[in-house]
Amino acid sequence: MHGRDGPGTGTDDERLDQHTVRRNNLVRVLEEVRACRARSRSELATRTGLSKATVSGLVTELIERRLLRESGRHHAGGVGRPGRLLELDGSTVAALGVEVNAHYLAVRGVDLAGRVLSERRMDFDTPRAGAEQAVGELARLAGKVLGEVERSGTRLAGIGVAVPGIVDVPSGTVRHAPNLLWRDVPITSWLRRWLALDERHTVVVDNEANLAALAEFNRPDNTVDDLVSLTGEVGVGAGVVTGRRLLRGSAGFTGEIGHVPVVAHGRACGCGQRGCLETRIGLEAAVRAAAPDLIGTGRDPARQARILLRRAEEGDPRALSGLDEVGHWLGVGISIVVNLFNPSLVVLGGYFAMVAAHVLPRATRELRARAVAGQEAACPVTASAFGFTAAVRGGANIIVEEVLDDPCRCPRTGPRGKD
Amino acid sequence: MHGRDGPGTGTDDERLDQHTVRRNNLVRVLEEVRACRARSRSELATRTGLSKATVSGLVTELIERRLLRESGRHHAGGVGRPGRLLELDGSTVAALGVEVNAHYLAVRGVDLAGRVLSERRMDFDTPRAGAEQAVGELARLAGKVLGEVERSGTRLAGIGVAVPGIVDVPSGTVRHAPNLLWRDVPITSWLRRWLALDERHTVVVDNEANLAALAEFNRPDNTVDDLVSLTGEVGVGAGVVTGRRLLRGSAGFTGEIGHVPVVAHGRACGCGQRGCLETRIGLEAAVRAAAPDLIGTGRDPARQARILLRRAEEGDPRALSGLDEVGHWLGVGISIVVNLFNPSLVVLGGYFAMVAAHVLPRATRELRARAVAGQEAACPVTASAFGFTAAVRGGANIIVEEVLDDPCRCPRTGPRGKD
Repeated sequence: MHGRDGPGTGTDDERLDQHTVRRNNLVRVLEEVRACRARSRSELATRTGLSKATVSGLVTELIERRLLRESGRHHAGGVGRPGRLLELDGSTVAALGVEVNAHYLAVRGVDLAGRVLSERRMDFDTPRAGAEQAVGELARLAGKVLGEVERSGTRLAGIGVAVPGIVDVPSGTVRHAPNLLWRDVPITSWLRRWLALDERHTVVVDNEANLAALAEFNRPDNTVDDLVSLTGEVGVGAGVVTGRRLLRGSAGFTGEIGHVPVVAHGRACGCGQRGCLETRIGLEAAVRAAAPDLIGTGRDPARQARILLRRAEEGDPRALSGLDEVGHWLGVGISIVVNLFNPSLVVLGGYFAMVAAHVLPRATRELRARAVAGQEAACPVTASAFGFTAAVRGGANIIVEEVLDDPCRCPRTGPRGKD
Repeated sequence: MHGRDGPGTGTDDERLDQHTVRRNNLVRVLEEVRACRARSRSELATRTGLSKATVSGLVTELIERRLLRESGRHHAGGVGRPGRLLELDGSTVAALGVEVNAHYLAVRGVDLAGRVLSERRMDFDTPRAGAEQAVGELARLAGKVLGEVERSGTRLAGIGVAVPGIVDVPSGTVRHAPNLLWRDVPITSWLRRWLALDERHTVVVDNEANLAALAEFNRPDNTVDDLVSLTGEVGVGAGVVTGRRLLRGSAGFTGEIGHVPVVAHGRACGCGQRGCLETRIGLEAAVRAAAPDLIGTGRDPARQARILLRRAEEGDPRALSGLDEVGHWLGVGISIVVNLFNPSLVVLGGYFAMVAAHVLPRATRELRARAVAGQEAACPVTASAFGFTAAVRGGANIIVEEVLDDPCRCPRTGPRGKD
């Protein structure tokens, strides 16, 4: 089983492993510099335990891949020949987040350091347009942002796509997005073709709830390793970050909290079952409970939520009692994710965030009553500050993480200014 | 913020980081040898990218910590001076798994390679005895196993303790174990004192469902990275392995599937709420549905499950219809974990495994109907082969993993035979 060759020959497996080792070492060096724990080649050698020759080769490669740059200053203290200081060269690599929503399309271009380079958003009736036209429109919008990004000298690493539905992540296909009326949409290959992307570009498609959770986790002021983001729109989904990693399961089909059956023989749900949580806290349920005159008016979720909020603020009794009922069932839903995932924080997104003042008091009481592990486990629940932009932010985040976790995805083009 | 000293001096933070780097390198070397990817010092240097001097120091330390040994054979092919081959020396380090159940106590001693060194089990009425007496009895049982383990020349690395309840993992305290009638039991400090353990020994206490999941994941024939273990006893708990790691959340309070409310205004549950899943598929619910004459007879769960099984096999209509109803709600529970965690496999443990033939057909139908991501997500559901021993196995596993993830926990005593 473990056939051995002399050093310097190596089987295919061994070469594969050596590639993995080198990639892991690139990631380690990048992380040390990114966290400002080491800023010269000799410090990197000390920190990582790698030889100076190895570190030097890794740094050269990271500079060629435009992930590090020499800052030009010199190392003042210490023994031996001073070395040039290194810093993250995130400004030359861009990540695009794009989002397909039932009511709008959005694109956001950032660099590796998270600076926004360009951003566009347009109202769009996605279910009406059909998948091919919608993705074509998205590609046009992304193309405009990409043009702006590339004119500033930044190279695209990849695109993270947020979709409200079941996504087959490995193939980049949207399996089923009921609210878009999409089935088996090969969005990755369409975007690749229409944006003329090549194999150096990463395209990741993921569920909007997963990407929203990633955006909440990557907030500069975030201090927790474990959080659940609960997004309320027409559907209800959870994105889970646990131990600083997005929970993906075996194929990315995680966090379908909206279809936990909470009422035996309850109201029919779009999934074909009855009494799902979504039939109690999805936006349609909220409208039915709090503003039944809006049923069937087919408005944008954000607009519907604004009407609910305005009526509640004006003291409309129906709105107040309806949102209180939503608060009860939202609390049931939060208690389920708390009892299963034990996060340090639950962040409410989508329409939940907009009406938070009117649903949180009841929801928090439910959570306290239902947290099996007691009050310590009944973690804080906050409203997202990202409004309806969390998913597109997360789309950009996932590409930034991909690049920093696999620097070889960045083309090796020599240091800035040489090509 | 980033104060810098010359090489060789170093702040406290820097020394801390260097310790982390060395520990990580020890783990990398150990993993390479464990997986048989590298078996000589020069191969390890090639694979890890570390210098030969660094590798040599790491290997010496791992030999002193009795985690590696030289096998005495020589490297035949290749260029340069041949080196001695290395192999995992798991036989000198032992891990104990111990389990507190409402009806029995169990202890299992294994070496790092997973070989069983000694095993003991006794019937015990834990709630009746009270926590202090129960832990005293457990310590006596563990002491016997430990004596047998140490007589064979093996040194204890630590003890993994499985408890059916809410465990505060960092402090090693059982917060609340309703079926044991325990509250705030400092089991770690009691076991440390009564077994005369010192700071070199690890003691980990965890929920039995978590440890059962770890045992299923560590089966030699396991091929999946993501699984959920659903254990049915008086209570119902889920242990989740995701991306090859046990899901812990922020404080270890994960997997409380038994308290998902599935029937609004349903039967009262021990947790204080109504209509929890446990009120439908806990062992008491099964007895109520399938063999109501056994209610209140207070038998050992395994014995009650054997009676249910025998009656179902004999064609008792009440037993068959009752277990079919349990199968329905078990399928609801499985669909919840499938829709939230997207595992590749669900393993049923405890009484579920014993009556699997009579609950699985119905449960599998429910799962197929309720898997939101479609048939591909409706993963296989199997019965555990471990009976009621999964948790004690997982207790030993968690110590083995701790040692291999942090070799510095093994005392540095020189190579075998020198002390």
